[in-house]
Amino acid sequence: MELLRQRILKDGVVRPGSVLKVDSFLNHQIDVELLDAIAAEFERIYAGKPINKVLTIEASGIAVACFVARHFSVPLVFAKKTQSINLEGDSYSTRIESYTHGRIFDVIVSKKYLCSEDHILIVDDFLANGCALEGLIDIAEKAGASIEGIGIVIEKGFQRGGLSLREQGYPLSSLAIIDSMDAETGEIVFRRDAR
Amino acid sequence: MELLRQRILKDGVVRPGSVLKVDSFLNHQIDVELLDAIAAEFERIYAGKPINKVLTIEASGIAVACFVARHFSVPLVFAKKTQSINLEGDSYSTRIESYTHGRIFDVIVSKKYLCSEDHILIVDDFLANGCALEGLIDIAEKAGASIEGIGIVIEKGFQRGGLSLREQGYPLSSLAIIDSMDAETGEIVFRRDAR
Repeated sequence: MELLRQRILKDGVVRPGSVLKVDSFLNHQIDVELLDAIAAEFERIYAGKPINKVLTIEASGIAVACFVARHFSVPLVFAKKTQSINLEGDSYSTRIESYTHGRIFDVIVSKKYLCSEDHILIVDDFLANGCALEGLIDIAEKAGASIEGIGIVIEKGFQRGGLSLREQGYPLSSLAIIDSMDAETGEIVFRRDAR
Repeated sequence: MELLRQRILKDGVVRPGSVLKVDSFLNHQIDVELLDAIAAEFERIYAGKPINKVLTIEASGIAVACFVARHFSVPLVFAKKTQSINLEGDSYSTRIESYTHGRIFDVIVSKKYLCSEDHILIVDDFLANGCALEGLIDIAEKAGASIEGIGIVIEKGFQRGGLSLREQGYPLSSLAIIDSMDAETGEIVFRRDAR
C-alpha cells in the first residue's frame, strides 16, 4: 500500500536491534485518517469473504482493528492480556511470549464472543516473529472459528513470522513488508510484491 | 444518550461489588456502530472547541477514542501502561492505581505527542473512582496542554470520580451516569440529567 510505505519512509525511525519506531502514526499517536485508509484496503482485499467478526489483541492492535470492523460493519473482539491465570473455564486462552516486553502473557477471549459459527478476520499492527498472531490463531482454532483472513499493517519480512504463516497456508496480507532496514543509515527496503 | 442507556439496560450485567459488565459491546467485544454514534454525540457536545488531539489510555479507552478522533479529524494519542520504570526523560509520566486489576501502573505519554500548544479532548470508556482519568489529567497538565473536554461513555455516579472532577471545574460529560445498581435484581438506575 503505497500511502503506507511513503508514510513509513517519512516518519518511521530505524533503531538498533531491528526496531522500527512508528509511534508517531501507528501505535502511540495514531493518524486516524491513515488507519481508515488502511481499513479500506483490507476491505478491498477480503471483499466477498463471509467475515462476521474482527479479532485483534490489546493494546496496539485495537485502533486499526476498530476501523477495519467499521468498514466491514461487524463487531470487533480484542483478546486480553492477563498475568493472573484466572481461568474460570469461560474463556479461550493461550500463552504468548512478547519479545518487545520480554515477558510471557496469558491471552484470553471470552467464549461468549467467539464460536464455531464465526468467520473472522484477524488484524494486527505488526508481524515480526509471529508470536502474537500465533496466539490469536490458536484461540480462533480452539473456538472452531474459520479464519477468513489475516491483515497486518507492517510485516518485518526478515523475521520468521510471515514466512511460517504463509507456509502453513494462512490467508495473510501485509500492507507493507520490510525486507531490510539499517539503523545506521536509516534505510528501509520494502518487498516489491507487497500490495 | 438514550441509545446507550437502552443498550446498557439490554446487555449490561450487574455483578456483586458494583461491577457492571458491558463487555458484550464496549470493552471486549465492541459494537463499532454504537461507538461511532457515541463519537458523534461527543462531537455534538464539544462542537466549537478548538480540539486538535484526543487523549486516552490503553487498552479499553482506545476503541471509543479512535472513533471520537475520526469525528474530529484529529490524531489520537493513547497513554501507555508500563510496569518497568524506564524513564528516559522523553516522556510525561504519572502513576495510577487500578482497582480492577489491584495494581499500580506507571503511565506514560511521549513528549513528542503532547505539548503546551495542544487543546485536547480526553476520552475513556468508564469513570468510577477517577484514578485513570486523574492520571491522564496529570499528564496533560505536565505537558501544559489545554483540556477542552472530558468525554466518558459510562460513569458510575455513586463513586467519587465524577463528583470530584466536576467540583474541580473540569468540562466533564458522561453519556450515561448510573446512580445505583443492584446485583440481586439486576436493576440499573440512571441519573436523569445525564445527556
